[in-house]
Amino acid sequence: MDWKRLFTSVEAVRLTAWRREFHRHPELCWQEAWTTARIVEVLEEAGIPILCGPQVIDRRAMRGYSPQQAREASARAAGWGASPAILARMEGVTGAVAVLDTGRPGPTVALRFDVDALPLQELQSPSHRPFAQGFCSQNPGVMHACGHDGHIAIGLGVALAAWAQLDQFAGRIKLLFQPGEEGVRGGLAMAESGVVDDVDLFFSGHLGMGNPSGQLTALYGGALASTKFDIAFTGTSVHAASAPQEGRNALLAACSAVLGMHTLCQDAQGETRLNVGTLHGGTGRNIIPDRVVLEVESRGATDQVEQRLFQAALQVCQGAARMYGCQASHLLQGYAPCGRCDEELLDPILQAAKRVPAWSRVVPRGRMDASEDVYCLINRVRQHGGKGAYLGLGADLAGRHHSAGFDFDEGALLAGAQLYLSLLGQFLGC
Amino acid sequence: MDWKRLFTSVEAVRLTAWRREFHRHPELCWQEAWTTARIVEVLEEAGIPILCGPQVIDRRAMRGYSPQQAREASARAAGWGASPAILARMEGVTGAVAVLDTGRPGPTVALRFDVDALPLQELQSPSHRPFAQGFCSQNPGVMHACGHDGHIAIGLGVALAAWAQLDQFAGRIKLLFQPGEEGVRGGLAMAESGVVDDVDLFFSGHLGMGNPSGQLTALYGGALASTKFDIAFTGTSVHAASAPQEGRNALLAACSAVLGMHTLCQDAQGETRLNVGTLHGGTGRNIIPDRVVLEVESRGATDQVEQRLFQAALQVCQGAARMYGCQASHLLQGYAPCGRCDEELLDPILQAAKRVPAWSRVVPRGRMDASEDVYCLINRVRQHGGKGAYLGLGADLAGRHHSAGFDFDEGALLAGAQLYLSLLGQFLGC
Amino acid sequence: MDWKRLFTSVEAVRLTAWRREFHRHPELCWQEAWTTARIVEVLEEAGIPILCGPQVIDRRAMRGYSPQQAREASARAAGWGASPAILARMEGVTGAVAVLDTGRPGPTVALRFDVDALPLQELQSPSHRPFAQGFCSQNPGVMHACGHDGHIAIGLGVALAAWAQLDQFAGRIKLLFQPGEEGVRGGLAMAESGVVDDVDLFFSGHLGMGNPSGQLTALYGGALASTKFDIAFTGTSVHAASAPQEGRNALLAACSAVLGMHTLCQDAQGETRLNVGTLHGGTGRNIIPDRVVLEVESRGATDQVEQRLFQAALQVCQGAARMYGCQASHLLQGYAPCGRCDEELLDPILQAAKRVPAWSRVVPRGRMDASEDVYCLINRVRQHGGKGAYLGLGADLAGRHHSAGFDFDEGALLAGAQLYLSLLGQFLGC
Amino acid sequence: MDWKRLFTSVEAVRLTAWRREFHRHPELCWQEAWTTARIVEVLEEAGIPILCGPQVIDRRAMRGYSPQQAREASARAAGWGASPAILARMEGVTGAVAVLDTGRPGPTVALRFDVDALPLQELQSPSHRPFAQGFCSQNPGVMHACGHDGHIAIGLGVALAAWAQLDQFAGRIKLLFQPGEEGVRGGLAMAESGVVDDVDLFFSGHLGMGNPSGQLTALYGGALASTKFDIAFTGTSVHAASAPQEGRNALLAACSAVLGMHTLCQDAQGETRLNVGTLHGGTGRNIIPDRVVLEVESRGATDQVEQRLFQAALQVCQGAARMYGCQASHLLQGYAPCGRCDEELLDPILQAAKRVPAWSRVVPRGRMDASEDVYCLINRVRQHGGKGAYLGLGADLAGRHHSAGFDFDEGALLAGAQLYLSLLGQFLGC
Repeated sequence: MDWKRLFTSVEAVRLTAWRREFHRHPELCWQEAWTTARIVEVLEEAGIPILCGPQVIDRRAMRGYSPQQAREASARAAGWGASPAILARMEGVTGAVAVLDTGRPGPTVALRFDVDALPLQELQSPSHRPFAQGFCSQNPGVMHACGHDGHIAIGLGVALAAWAQLDQFAGRIKLLFQPGEEGVRGGLAMAESGVVDDVDLFFSGHLGMGNPSGQLTALYGGALASTKFDIAFTGTSVHAASAPQEGRNALLAACSAVLGMHTLCQDAQGETRLNVGTLHGGTGRNIIPDRVVLEVESRGATDQVEQRLFQAALQVCQGAARMYGCQASHLLQGYAPCGRCDEELLDPILQAAKRVPAWSRVVPRGRMDASEDVYCLINRVRQHGGKGAYLGLGADLAGRHHSAGFDFDEGALLAGAQLYLSLLGQFLGC
Repeated sequence: MDWKRLFTSVEAVRLTAWRREFHRHPELCWQEAWTTARIVEVLEEAGIPILCGPQVIDRRAMRGYSPQQAREASARAAGWGASPAILARMEGVTGAVAVLDTGRPGPTVALRFDVDALPLQELQSPSHRPFAQGFCSQNPGVMHACGHDGHIAIGLGVALAAWAQLDQFAGRIKLLFQPGEEGVRGGLAMAESGVVDDVDLFFSGHLGMGNPSGQLTALYGGALASTKFDIAFTGTSVHAASAPQEGRNALLAACSAVLGMHTLCQDAQGETRLNVGTLHGGTGRNIIPDRVVLEVESRGATDQVEQRLFQAALQVCQGAARMYGCQASHLLQGYAPCGRCDEELLDPILQAAKRVPAWSRVVPRGRMDASEDVYCLINRVRQHGGKGAYLGLGADLAGRHHSAGFDFDEGALLAGAQLYLSLLGQFLGC
Repeated sequence: MDWKRLFTSVEAVRLTAWRREFHRHPELCWQEAWTTARIVEVLEEAGIPILCGPQVIDRRAMRGYSPQQAREASARAAGWGASPAILARMEGVTGAVAVLDTGRPGPTVALRFDVDALPLQELQSPSHRPFAQGFCSQNPGVMHACGHDGHIAIGLGVALAAWAQLDQFAGRIKLLFQPGEEGVRGGLAMAESGVVDDVDLFFSGHLGMGNPSGQLTALYGGALASTKFDIAFTGTSVHAASAPQEGRNALLAACSAVLGMHTLCQDAQGETRLNVGTLHGGTGRNIIPDRVVLEVESRGATDQVEQRLFQAALQVCQGAARMYGCQASHLLQGYAPCGRCDEELLDPILQAAKRVPAWSRVVPRGRMDASEDVYCLINRVRQHGGKGAYLGLGADLAGRHHSAGFDFDEGALLAGAQLYLSLLGQFLGC
Repeated sequence: MDWKRLFTSVEAVRLTAWRREFHRHPELCWQEAWTTARIVEVLEEAGIPILCGPQVIDRRAMRGYSPQQAREASARAAGWGASPAILARMEGVTGAVAVLDTGRPGPTVALRFDVDALPLQELQSPSHRPFAQGFCSQNPGVMHACGHDGHIAIGLGVALAAWAQLDQFAGRIKLLFQPGEEGVRGGLAMAESGVVDDVDLFFSGHLGMGNPSGQLTALYGGALASTKFDIAFTGTSVHAASAPQEGRNALLAACSAVLGMHTLCQDAQGETRLNVGTLHGGTGRNIIPDRVVLEVESRGATDQVEQRLFQAALQVCQGAARMYGCQASHLLQGYAPCGRCDEELLDPILQAAKRVPAWSRVVPRGRMDASEDVYCLINRVRQHGGKGAYLGLGADLAGRHHSAGFDFDEGALLAGAQLYLSLLGQFLGC
């Protein structure tokens, strides 16, 4: 393995250019039409075989998908210059997987990059580099405020470098460009497509996450399992003054349920979280509300704890509906299991990191305070006998994750790409 | 009809003595053992035929009856000097009905007197006449604080006077001494016994009720229908720190239900009331409560409005129990329908009042702010073709009804007794 | 008084045409720009002096006014052909008052017509006459679904007829075209302008309201006083999984407040209503909500009962905010006092109705189940020594008031206009 | 050190006899009058100097103390044969500390034994050894169901043995017999008296706690900090039907607070628990409740987390009271800080255990799921430069801790006493 050649085949300047291009074009879950099409375009221009849309996403597992929004996203992508041919192949479904097959026997290593953005209006201020240097979001109200634009850039860089050096590898490389990580929707849908069922080793990582530039967290664990769901309460509306006794007040049911669900977070077997993030209901001041919709998420330190909480929350809603003669129904909107990485991968990761000078400090294990649907993929890999790990790729940040002024040290892009290449070399080098 | 002879046959001094004797011996619902036995004794000594206990009370309709309490009440009555023979005839059931049959054809007129007291500690103060004059309650925590002691005295006075003048009457006189008006329990049980099924004209009245001495309210209407019920929530207790997730918190269910039930009082078809008067639950600070009991009452301006409220309250409790994986059950404790008096009785009452000089002012109609199980009896009379009215017998008050310093102008006793005799004379005089 | 000439000076066909023209152009509260301008235009073309906008509306009392919406409404009105000159005079404020001064001494009689529409999408169905005959709303989501279009038509008809016959009258006639009755916002703002301070006799009425065609309810009373208000809860948002302890959950505060406010509707001094009609809050599923807004209304059978309820509701909100470390603030959005009509006007109204054959049945008194800001004006008239009445103008209805299929028997327009003329003749005829 | 002589100076038979004697005489917190007097008596008979009552308890820190209950307990103790002289010295305050001073220089080692029982009716069943063998509780409704009777027996055994072998030791031995561990009340009051301020090494332990006979847990940590408090809501009572608007409903406030407090258990800095264990309120079904009392406990994984929760709970109560025009006040009833043992004591404990053959298995560290006020004492020792540890003394159990059928393997008494003696010998042996 010629490590030097491998590492220098990635050009920092291209990584930065890609990152900024994607930063300008942020798209939300299931609406990453331009994003997917652009990824496919870059890789296919290089000759890399790539699957996309329904080939890598199981439609039945797409929570929160709106055909109408997908059509609008596709139209917008076309307006931004996406290839009509690629858009047509996608059939309204986002996400792509590049497959670099060496033709030589060997294991299959998958790397996963999440590609979606957040519903946030980007900061318009000279202190904010994307604004100062002119690569701010051009999609109002949407922003890459978590660093997924960087993940895409790293993925493209790794793809082109590995493709260029493919003769140094045996086995197969799969590069997953996953939609809808925010809201934990895309991981399950990609896993259910079967695209990682043949994977022996799986890696993914996240920029920042509390790691400064140069610091790598080798294994993340302890992420909270999470279910995202909506609850709709329906009752009977009636004029509030002339016949209140004929109404069935869906808002009273919803308010009882909100309070009730928030009482459920005591579990001696592991920590739990529940949040009713939004509530919208009612049609007019003098009308008894007949429809109220809540966006809710439950989380738990183990899958069992989370499912117990989720089921208890549903029970609370059923009971609250009954109190006021209403009905409650729920709609699943996302899911991520509780995370765990394979301890056997710690040593290889440490070795891989050593080869990349940018990684001056390695923390063996870290704890996630959030939920991540990468664990849908890691779990699937494991169920088929493979191993997986989730990494923290240090990057100094400007602003917190998910804030309007978020930005990161672009030097981390090269460090990240080289780390992935080092891992590929370690497991597939010939 | 020799009205003068009739009216003077009642002696004010005896009325006052009786009133004070009963004031000293207050007893709660279904525990009026001494009270009933003493009434029977007084009337039987005069030779008046009298039915008591199960003869005039339908055991199946006795809400809130406790055999244990009844036994204790009987023992206390014996200790207070009640006749063992009469207590034996009562079989643990209170209430009595005297029947004065003239042997001459004529209608049957019933008068009803309620006899129970309240769970209240009587005021011990020189400013309180029963204390100053030595006829305070000798039953700690129980007090005649509503005037039913006066009702009994009036009833006894009317009975003896009518019996003495029976030759002036035709038809039959029934004098009902009803237990358990507080909590509206006795009226239904006495009605269900059938004791008023042959009654043509029914009258009852209440001292005070906003009427000063000398003022009579001829017809009361608009009393609120009311159901008295207990709700028990049962869940699963568990140590609150070591396994909260295994508990089913009956207190959370109960608290949701309390709030929920109190939201139900909007009805365009009539006014409503709901009160959760008491709540008791839990066994220890560090134990998740597994049993909570509520005492509740619903009221409504019409029977339909009240029943809708009551049913909605039960639904709230079922739903609240379900929210937290608990069970809810209810126990009926009392019932009074919505009241209405026969308008045809207004004129006869006005005439009857005119004969009694004490009634210097007559108000034709009044509205009750409370509930009264006399309407169980009036409804029953009506269903059998009779007519009924409920009167307000003016009496200046010291203290409000149901307060520890309650007392009334004893001059009202004679005025009340004479009014009833005047009514008897009017309908039965020969 | 030549009644025949007076009555026949109103042409049914013009009334219907006007009604349909206004039906096509429905506008919401404070946005009745086209409506006001068109009224002014019609009357000024006839030579009738008319005040409008800030001349008849006190800006300080305009609840829920949005300058932005007013500008948009003005632009829309211009697009619909409203006179730019009139729009300019209005200065963004809707409402108009025509003053027909006979120059002869006599009392001042005011008639009031409310002119606004409702936020409702009109039914598009052949069974709905406005659709079938092509005069459906051309303002999407807004509809004259209460009959105010008819009120305007009646007002215009009365104005032109009275103006034409002005020689038959002495004293003064004021015709009020009031904006914003829905949501009870316009009445107060018009009253505060002082425009009815010189009025001796005041009449207004409503089509339908339970009266079939030909039936007139002479005096309405018992409307519920009502306050319309918004409550905003503000807290602190934070990521719901990583730092829930740092959040201040405005949704929990709001839900506690909703339940709490709905427990307040028990008052022995009069019936009450409270409704939280809408609740909107939160920004994302995984964010603790930091802002929630509620639209609420309180009502009561007397002004005192309503104000007690309103104040108690504010207290509930303050306490609920404090529970969760949040703030609550309220914004008044509308007000109507409890209604009462002058009994002395009953006989004159009965006489006036007798002259109009269309009114075949007169009900002396009626009860309103709704709230009406006409009582802001009637109260103001009374405070200055005048008298007022609110009438029910029978009209067979298709669909209930405030429903998408609402329509009414247009024959009622002529009956209504003639009744008002009859009243004018009675009080001002010379 | 003659270990054999030391260990054999404790007689198993006396330990068992003591344990059964105390089992027969269980007493609740601050009511351990007989218990304290008997301990003092046994030790003073042996000549051991002992302080008691206010000498070792700071009255100001006695949460939940009732002089009335203390007097009754004292009277009961006298009836059970307690020494009147000792009872007089106690001045109504329970608890005792024996001080064994060798007169030789050396460190001070304290051992602490908690002595109170639980409010539980003991199981009356042949399967329950205390019943079968005739040493059941003779104090109805009170039971040693946690093993503190065994702790006392161990303490007495250690005291007599150490006293008999005092020539083998240097330094000082303090034996703390602490009242009121249940409800975590006694630890703070004993610590505040200053009685452990001179202690260098502190040990205490608990029988059972998940350790079978023969298993010792060397260091317990991770107990939850806890505050025990009562909340009283006061409002205004009024007849629920006739004037509900004048009431201030303390039960609605309490129910809102219960739900609100239970929503507080989400904290990313450590696990939390909150329980409203009991709620009692209201005086009658038809009276708006004016007083409601709640027994509450908050717990947290760190002192900071617990205090944040406790303060938030108080805020919820203040807000809920305000919602309904009521007042809320709180009364502290107990407190235990978050526990931690000194790691430096692990090795000495392991060594000490090795000398006692009964301890066949030692678990270095354990986690407590409960709260323990021993940490009030350990914290105090540490603040003054000493070290402390809390041990798990294995004992096979019949029934769970705090259950009516609780019993333990009495063989653990000797094993426990020998372990403490081994620790004393290790640190103080000369």
